[in-house]
Parts: sequence; C-alpha cells; structure tokens
Amino acid sequence: MFDSVQLKTPRLDKEAFVAVIEPLREKLLDAQFELAQRKRKAILLLINGSDGAGKGETLNRIYEWLDDHFLETLSYTKPTDDERMRPPEWRYWRDMPAKGRIGLVLGGWHHRILRDRALGEMSASAFDGAIEEINRNEEMLSRDGVIVLKVWLHVDDAKARRRLAKLREADGALRRAVVVEWDRIKGRKQRARLNEAAFALIEKTSTAHAPWEVIAAEDWRYRDTEIARLLLATLERANAEPAPASSPSHAEPPAGSARPSLLASLVLSKSVGANAYAKSLDALQQRLSELTTAKRFENRGLVLLFEGNDAAGKGGAITRVRAALDPRRFRVHGVAAPTDEESARPYLWRFWRDVPRLGHSAIFDRSWYGRVLVERVERLCPPEDWMRAYSEINDFERQLTRANLVVVKFWMAIDPEEQLRRFREREAQPTKRYKLTKEDWRNREHARLYEAAANDMFDRTSTRPAPWTLVEANDKKFARLKVLRTIVARLEETE
Amino acid sequence: MFDSVQLKTPRLDKEAFVAVIEPLREKLLDAQFELAQRKRKAILLLINGSDGAGKGETLNRIYEWLDDHFLETLSYTKPTDDERMRPPEWRYWRDMPAKGRIGLVLGGWHHRILRDRALGEMSASAFDGAIEEINRNEEMLSRDGVIVLKVWLHVDDAKARRRLAKLREADGALRRAVVVEWDRIKGRKQRARLNEAAFALIEKTSTAHAPWEVIAAEDWRYRDTEIARLLLATLERANAEPAPASSPSHAEPPAGSARPSLLASLVLSKSVGANAYAKSLDALQQRLSELTTAKRFENRGLVLLFEGNDAAGKGGAITRVRAALDPRRFRVHGVAAPTDEESARPYLWRFWRDVPRLGHSAIFDRSWYGRVLVERVERLCPPEDWMRAYSEINDFERQLTRANLVVVKFWMAIDPEEQLRRFREREAQPTKRYKLTKEDWRNREHARLYEAAANDMFDRTSTRPAPWTLVEANDKKFARLKVLRTIVARLEETE
Repeated sequence: MFDSVQLKTPRLDKEAFVAVIEPLREKLLDAQFELAQRKRKAILLLINGSDGAGKGETLNRIYEWLDDHFLETLSYTKPTDDERMRPPEWRYWRDMPAKGRIGLVLGGWHHRILRDRALGEMSASAFDGAIEEINRNEEMLSRDGVIVLKVWLHVDDAKARRRLAKLREADGALRRAVVVEWDRIKGRKQRARLNEAAFALIEKTSTAHAPWEVIAAEDWRYRDTEIARLLLATLERANAEPAPASSPSHAEPPAGSARPSLLASLVLSKSVGANAYAKSLDALQQRLSELTTAKRFENRGLVLLFEGNDAAGKGGAITRVRAALDPRRFRVHGVAAPTDEESARPYLWRFWRDVPRLGHSAIFDRSWYGRVLVERVERLCPPEDWMRAYSEINDFERQLTRANLVVVKFWMAIDPEEQLRRFREREAQPTKRYKLTKEDWRNREHARLYEAAANDMFDRTSTRPAPWTLVEANDKKFARLKVLRTIVARLEETE
Repeated sequence: MFDSVQLKTPRLDKEAFVAVIEPLREKLLDAQFELAQRKRKAILLLINGSDGAGKGETLNRIYEWLDDHFLETLSYTKPTDDERMRPPEWRYWRDMPAKGRIGLVLGGWHHRILRDRALGEMSASAFDGAIEEINRNEEMLSRDGVIVLKVWLHVDDAKARRRLAKLREADGALRRAVVVEWDRIKGRKQRARLNEAAFALIEKTSTAHAPWEVIAAEDWRYRDTEIARLLLATLERANAEPAPASSPSHAEPPAGSARPSLLASLVLSKSVGANAYAKSLDALQQRLSELTTAKRFENRGLVLLFEGNDAAGKGGAITRVRAALDPRRFRVHGVAAPTDEESARPYLWRFWRDVPRLGHSAIFDRSWYGRVLVERVERLCPPEDWMRAYSEINDFERQLTRANLVVVKFWMAIDPEEQLRRFREREAQPTKRYKLTKEDWRNREHARLYEAAANDMFDRTSTRPAPWTLVEANDKKFARLKVLRTIVARLEETE
C-alpha cells in the first residue's frame, strides 16, 4: 500500500514550484470563496504523519493560501476534564465546523487509536473495531455535508528526527512552531508497532467516502504543491455538488407489512390503584434519588428519552422522574426547530451538544428519533437519510453507553380513543391549552404511518446496550410507575 | 436592612396555601408561555441563602410550576480546567440563556465572592471592588435583555444545620437532593464573617436594575408563595416591555467637535525600505515565536484586535503575525452577521465565546468595537446602546487582562487617496476582488463620521491595561513592523 512513496523522493526546484503554485493559489482562493458563499459543505482536512514531516508547516502554508476567516485549526492533545467527563467522540463533535468552513485537524481520531495501539494500550481486535467505527462515522459525515480529507505526510524516520532536533532550543522552546505528536513513542519496538499500525489504518480506512492521500514530504515544495492540488480538487468537488432537491417527492413508504406489530401487541389498559400508586411512586423516587446522588453515580450518567403518541403523558412522566433527581444535575431538552448553527452541521450535532457530563442526567422530550418518525412520515428528508439514520443512531448510542452513560428509551403508547379524550380535555383546561396544536390533530390522521415508522424503529434500534421500553400509557399512573421502575432497574443492573 | 425577615416567621396553613398558589400557577404558566413566544427577554433567577433554607426544594418547586422545556439550572461549583483556563466570568457568559428562557442559578457570582470573603481569601477592598463590578455587569445584562432577579432565602442558623443533618445518610448520600454550598465555612469566626459579608453584599447590590428579595424560609408554604409571586411579577414585567423601536430615527451624532483629533495628528506617510523590512520582519517574527511557544506563555494568552479604514491592510498585518504563532494555538475571528443563537443573547456574548484559553491567541479582524463604530455611524442601534458600550467594553477588557490575557488593539489608518488607490487595485486583481464590496464605497462617503466615532473610541477605551495603538499604514511594510513590534513589546513588558 502506497509503496511508491518510499521509493522515490520527488523534488521540485524553485522555478517549477512558482510556476505551479501561483495559478493554484488563485484558484484555491476563488474556490474557497465559493464554498463560503454556498454554505452547503464543510471540509475537514486531517493532517497526519511523522513528527518532522512538516505538519505544522503545511498548516501554516494553508493559512497563507486561503482566507483565514473561514478556516479553523482543530488540534487535539490530552483531553481536558470537560472532555474526559464525556464520550471520547464528544470533542470532535463539539468542534465540527459549520458548512462553508474548513477545519484543519491535528491529532484527530486516527491519531488517538494509532498512539494507543503503538503504546500497547489497545489490543489488535479493539484496533480493528475502532477502524470499522471510524469508517462508519466518516461515511456518515460525508453523507451529512462534511467532506473528510485525510493526508499522511511521509518522511524517512531518521531524517525526521534529525530535523526535529535542530529546531529545539536548549530550554526546550521551539524555534518554529513544530507539531510534536509522537514524543511518547520511544524505542524500536514501539516505533515498529506504530509503523505497522499506521499502514493497517491507512489501508483499512481508505474508503470511497474518505480516502487517504499519502504524500512524500521530504521536499517541501513537492509536498506543498501536492497539498494545494488536493485541496483544490476537494473544494471543486464540494462546489460541484448540486443543491439537494428542496421538496423530495417520492413514493409513500411501504404500507403496513405482514410483520407482527409490537405496538399492536400491547395491552394498553393496564392500570394501578391510587393507593398502590402513591406508595410505589414514593418508594421508586426515593430509590432513584439514592442511586443518582450516591458517590458511584459520579462516574456514570443518565440519558433518558421519551417518544410516543401525542398526549401520551410524556410530560407527566418526566416530571415524576425529574422530581427525584438533583436539580443541579439534570436538564430537560425539548426538541424544537434547529437553530441556524445547528442546521449548518450534521444531523446528530445538536444532540451531541446536550450529551451530559458524567454524574449528570439529560432528559429528552422527543429526540434524535425524530429523523425516523416525523421526518420520515412527513417526508421532511429523503428516504436514504432516514434509512441510514438507524445505524447512525445505534453508533451514537453505543458511544454513549460505552462512556458509562445509561441510555433508557421510552415509547409511551395510548389508543386513539384515549388520545381523543385527552385532546378534548386539553382544549377545555386553560393551563394545558397551549399544549395542543393543529399539528397534533394532523398527526392523528397519520396514525397508521406513525405506527409503521415506530415498529420499524423498535426493530432496528432496540440494541442490547440501549433497548426500547414500550409503556402502556392509557392509565397515567401505571405508565409513570413503569417508567420509574425501568430506570431504577437499568441503573441497578449496570451498577 | 431586611431586619423584618429576622423578627417574624410568617406561616401559611395548608388551606391558605392552596387558595393562593393554585391561581398563581395558572398565571405563571401563561406568563412563561408568553415569554417563550415573544423571545425578547431572558430571566436569570439567582437563588442564594443558607444551606438548609431550601434552595434545592425551591428549584424543584419552580420545575413543578413551569414548563421545563424553557427552563435551565445553571449550577456552579469548583471550576473545571476549561473554566480555569479562562477569565472567571467566562463560565457565566457561556451558559447565558437565550431570550425566552429562564435560568435558575445556584452558586453564581455573588456566592463566589461571599465564600472568598468569609474564608478570608479576599480583602475588604477587593470585596468592595467586586461588588461594584457586579453592579455594572447586572446593569448591562438588564439593558441587554436579561432580567436579573436575586433571592436570598433566610433561615435561622441553628435550625438550618439541624435540618441538614437529618437529610444525610450514614454513607454521606443525601436522602433528597439538597444543595450544600457552604460546607467549607466552619467555626464561629467564618460564619460571622459570612453573615456580615452577606448583609453588605445584599445592601450594596440591591440596585434598581436587579434588587434583592430576602425571603423568610422557615415555613415552606410561605417561602413558595413568595417565590411564585416574585416570579410572576418578573414574568409580567418582562412581557410588558414594549418591543424596541425597529428603526431608531435620531439626530446625527454631533459634528466634529473642537477636540483635537488623534487620527488627524498621525503622519501616515511613514515608511521603511525593503531590506530593512525583510530583516526586521524576520527578527520580530522569530521573537514572537519564542515568546508564544515558551513554557511561560502557557499561563498567558493573546487577544489581538484590528480595526481601521477599509483596505488599510488588516489582513496583511494579521498574516504576518499569524505566521509566527503556533498554528494549533490561535484562531482568526472575522466579524460576520450574528447567528440566531447570538442575536438571542447580550451583545458581548458572541465575543466571550471566542475568548481564548491560556496558552492560546485569538485574532479579531474587526471586533466588539463595531458597536461604537459601524453601529453608531449607520444607526444600527440607538445612541443609549453605543454610549453605554464604552464602559461595558472597558469592563470586558479588564476581565480579560486580569486573567493574564494580553489585549493589544490596533487601528490601521490610511488617507483617502491611498484608500482609493487600493480600491482600484482590488478591482483589477482577481484574487482580491471579493474583498471589495459596495459597502466599502459607501463607507468612504461617511469617512468624517467614522473618524469622529474612532476619535471618541480612542478617548473612551484606551485604558491602561488595554491601550490603543494607532498604526500609520500608508506604507504596508511600516505598518506590519509596527504591529509586530507592539505585540512583542507588550508581551515583554508584561512578562
């Protein structure tokens, strides 16, 4: 793989360099300007390679070529405590550039697993698993408007180290800003393991969506022209993509299949008496309080999400859960229309913003499942987008659970008669009137489509780490107890 | 001050409570709904008081009354390292709720100085200085759309401590989520100093903009009705405020006064030869590299801002500075139209977002001074707003410099003839054409107004910690050297 890079060391003389680079610079600036104007794609350029291969120089050169107002450097080293308190993917999501912008990434996700592997802190199979996940993630980004461009700057090991040594002053300060990423890799064994891992990584993550470019970096003029060409090709690709069709008109999703419906199998009328309710509610809330204020909870966290029929009692259930939580350590997130900062980024970005720190809880009243429910039924996004959302969501939730967040997902179900009764009640009651909108009435007409979408969703996203709990909610009291009992059980079983 | 709270302990029986609270709840929900719909004001409710007075209970009660989708708890304890790496005010700014929302604050800015004072970590004069700054800050918030409401829950000391003891389990876990803020205050002396400081604080920060309400919290029913009444009054006040006039039409700012003009006094033609330039540039960049990659820089940071005439060479100067910086530790911020998340918050919020961590640099190409330049000249905000901006900006910059950020402010000045020449040049040059807009031509017509605004700005915001540097920029080379030299000097003198 990429053996060519080791065979020859291409060189450019000054004259040839100027002749190539000057026209490129002009085109680069024009293309970047178009990217910034159209605001349809973001570009992430991941700069990897040996120390001393000129990662910092390359970065600086790009700043010379492009307009720095639409450019940002995303550099990752040791995680801060805010980052350590969240899934490792969180910091990359937090920094995601908006469409129209270019992010230059140093020390990104490839670097992290390479270092862990070279230091022997990651097994071969974990390394392979991480690679698969990277591929899925980069595919998702590329489908969601972010072009991922990966560069490996290659330079002979011995030369790179001589070069680095020259740049360091006696007191350790660097004469020029040099990017040193691999100083923990010492000795032949670790270096060999790093090289082997790097080649495996490049081979296995060179996908159609986000291929690697390995560039011989011995000669800076050659390196810079290659980078400039690559950037220009990427910008032109980004600008050439047609605008998404504004109103996708496609066939109705397949009508109710013969598959048995989980929802239809529920006995919605389950109920509980007032006394039993009061007693159980108190006991469950007390237990939830204990579990979430205990010392051990500081290394865990709760992500609760509520979906379900309109008027199924999500708000009431949330209130009962919330009352048991430390008010300083939870937040309730309603899903409203995305802000413009959210619209400018991949779909899951706005939910990543709300991922809680360890020791905290986030309660989502409606959630990322909107993609495969309302957006599917109301045709707000093309079928490709909601179809791929299932596996993207599974990845997302696995990233949460792997970082010790307990993900509990509720579907609150009521039957159409009960729903109608509650709509009428809301119309009559002043403090609840604002809860009922025209949309609620319209959704009722699409009940069959919503049911099909929900059944697909259960099938495709009820995973072992993050299963769905269907809640029979015709009786509010029964539903609230089931919600609390489920959360308590999930916390206890994962303790 | 508020002696009444210590004399009587008001009580409400259950019946009286229900009779009062039920109609209040309905009105509260309606008023909150209106706040969320109008999106014109945000509310910060700061909940302070003795431990055991029911801060957590009050918080929970508010969640019961209101719609939790537009409500958030902002709770501050020990700063994280991300917070420690920035000015102490940063974390409050970061969390600022958007208009239409209510933030419930625990452990806010009052708590911080009270604790420091009670522990003897803050002198009496520093305490008084902090109080003055709090007042200015709260006035700014209230003028910028954030209503600050401050509550002190008072309860007899001995009773509060008995109450707390009962709630703690043997293993330290709390039976209910109780807010414990003062556990570092121990012994009579510290408690006495805390009480004294609290009364001084309440007295001195009870302003027309953000008065304190001291509430007797012995009886929870009385406490809750008082809180509910207060909240309702605040919501109604927020909703009653008229929409700001959409196009303020007011008199032209006073024509050029008799005051001598700093700008007119500049000798814009200062220049430097090509050889001297190349030599000095290299030396200055090298020195800047050393200063910003040295170990000691990790506890400092740079905030550079560039204002000036259009085409005065801000971009070129920024490029020369940037080239000397570690590309992983700076960001260039152009000032574009605010996003909707930014428009929903006080003016300075979007700049607080970009305040760099220690060890990093932020370069602003145009800045918060837009308020007193373009917004004043083009009448984009009423005169009251830009008039108060001078002192708000001085406070902001003092907060930056106090936190070890070196703030360097440049005004790049060219004369009208040189500007015209550069405009024509830009029109002719393809890579620079996009830099010239219709606005640039229009701004030229308002040159006199911009000059008056700039002169006022120098007079009112050239402070000792953050002085302005006026740069004679008819000769680009001279200007670039002056910029670099100034930054190096400022870094050296503050070392």
